[in-house]
Amino acid sequence: MNFIEVIDLLGTIAFAISGALAAFSKKLDPFGIVIIAFVTAAGGGTLRDILIGVEPVSWMRNMNLVYTILLCVVITFFFRKRLLKLRKTLFLFDAIGIGLYTVVGLEMGLTAGLHPLICITLGCITACFGGVLRDILINEIPVIFRKNIYATACILGGGVYFILVELKVPNEIVFPVSAITVIATRILAVVFKLKLPTPYTQQELKKIKVKNKK
Amino acid sequence: MNFIEVIDLLGTIAFAISGALAAFSKKLDPFGIVIIAFVTAAGGGTLRDILIGVEPVSWMRNMNLVYTILLCVVITFFFRKRLLKLRKTLFLFDAIGIGLYTVVGLEMGLTAGLHPLICITLGCITACFGGVLRDILINEIPVIFRKNIYATACILGGGVYFILVELKVPNEIVFPVSAITVIATRILAVVFKLKLPTPYTQQELKKIKVKNKK
Amino acid sequence: MNFIEVIDLLGTIAFAISGALAAFSKKLDPFGIVIIAFVTAAGGGTLRDILIGVEPVSWMRNMNLVYTILLCVVITFFFRKRLLKLRKTLFLFDAIGIGLYTVVGLEMGLTAGLHPLICITLGCITACFGGVLRDILINEIPVIFRKNIYATACILGGGVYFILVELKVPNEIVFPVSAITVIATRILAVVFKLKLPTPYTQQELKKIKVKNKK
Repeated sequence: MNFIEVIDLLGTIAFAISGALAAFSKKLDPFGIVIIAFVTAAGGGTLRDILIGVEPVSWMRNMNLVYTILLCVVITFFFRKRLLKLRKTLFLFDAIGIGLYTVVGLEMGLTAGLHPLICITLGCITACFGGVLRDILINEIPVIFRKNIYATACILGGGVYFILVELKVPNEIVFPVSAITVIATRILAVVFKLKLPTPYTQQELKKIKVKNKK
Repeated sequence: MNFIEVIDLLGTIAFAISGALAAFSKKLDPFGIVIIAFVTAAGGGTLRDILIGVEPVSWMRNMNLVYTILLCVVITFFFRKRLLKLRKTLFLFDAIGIGLYTVVGLEMGLTAGLHPLICITLGCITACFGGVLRDILINEIPVIFRKNIYATACILGGGVYFILVELKVPNEIVFPVSAITVIATRILAVVFKLKLPTPYTQQELKKIKVKNKK
Repeated sequence: MNFIEVIDLLGTIAFAISGALAAFSKKLDPFGIVIIAFVTAAGGGTLRDILIGVEPVSWMRNMNLVYTILLCVVITFFFRKRLLKLRKTLFLFDAIGIGLYTVVGLEMGLTAGLHPLICITLGCITACFGGVLRDILINEIPVIFRKNIYATACILGGGVYFILVELKVPNEIVFPVSAITVIATRILAVVFKLKLPTPYTQQELKKIKVKNKK
């Protein structure tokens, strides 16, 4: 088991628990909970694999991943009352998940010999798409469309990754530093309510607000 | 034309008619009806092929399938009044469709050398995903999320399949027995209103009901 | 850069601007605008590539496409006020986009050695799917489901394409004539409010209207 596989596993655990918690909070039946946990943990990687052409997609050849997700559902089941009391748990697991998956996506893009900009896009897709599917399936507006420092955190982490690689920093340092950049950016954005600058004038934004109220 | 191709064809007919009936009942235009019939019949197999890496996807190399779906739309058009009077027709065709497609998906997973658990998942995807797309496109809540003994029927059929294979029962018996298990489970679940056991206490379920009423 | 690449580039520009204009009109943040422009311009081609098995999908190996889309977003940003005043601009760019992309999809289907009917389907998917994703993401009912002479225009252009190829007309004429057929059909359908014939009797349509009003 190499370094990237360990990171992948930790990301899977974070996302599977995040998905299972979201499904429990919506009172889904056992089958629905497993589906949501699986889609949250494996959805982003599945789209990445399909776009690159890694087929059968990763989870089909990786029974450890499948067992890990099932185990996370069981663990979440027994500890959900304790986990749900901590309101910030779901958010924290989600932030850790996107940090770790961004690095996995970047790495797989590089292995396929793709352009750095495309690798960063793949990092974003790996990190964000599972959560988008989770939110669509439990009938919430996807986090990524509500909070704009989400994918942006992944892009930032991707930038840090390529700067460190350019400086010939060893992988053992590049991986955790990039992942922590994503996680820290996401957490700071939520704590300090940061937003991207808007390209619209105040007048334009007022118009749309008035329109939405009607 | 081998045994699995015959099963595939029967499943296609069942699903194409199920899709066309649903589209007619929503008064879609001719183009919309063909799309819904096609997506219902070919959607699950398309996702399965993409995940395994069978590309171009099956229907692109199989004009018989395309012609069969178009023919089913024409037949449904002429007999729709008679078919719609029988309220249970749509449900029956859907049940037959998931039974036959589960076996096709299982078989293709085995051919690709995948783990039994993954093969069962592929059977489920082949059987259920076309119907999910049909329901999303005609703006109904997907059957699979409303009725939990739906994918569960496919999983049960998959289990029976591997038990029979393990017992070295010949394919000519394994295929129909597994398909009938799925169809019978689905029909019995609807007739006797069976549900999966819930992991929530009565109190928790009351809370969500009160919340939903607000 | 060959002929088909030039057509592809023009289609990309038309769709990227169409997507960016739609995103600006919904007052999305900068990240959202880039996503919508990208999905509109590359979504159809991505699904086509996945279905055929061209992987990594085209845009991953084609940085010119990525830069073109980003440039279109910047251009749309500076000229959006002027562009938005012309109400028909979005519609025109969309019509040009589907015309050009239909030809690209047809061509790629032929290269993969697929049946003419499948090639026409691929032309439709390339042309229409990006717009469907754009409309879903900005929360509008997809144009393709509201206006039925949309995919139909692509199918018609595909028919013209194969008739001309059959008549051994050179590619330099087949490509523009097929694309113009799509664009002209789409524009004429909107100007003269053309619709496909309905398979329902007046009585049946009245019933659904009464039902919808309830």
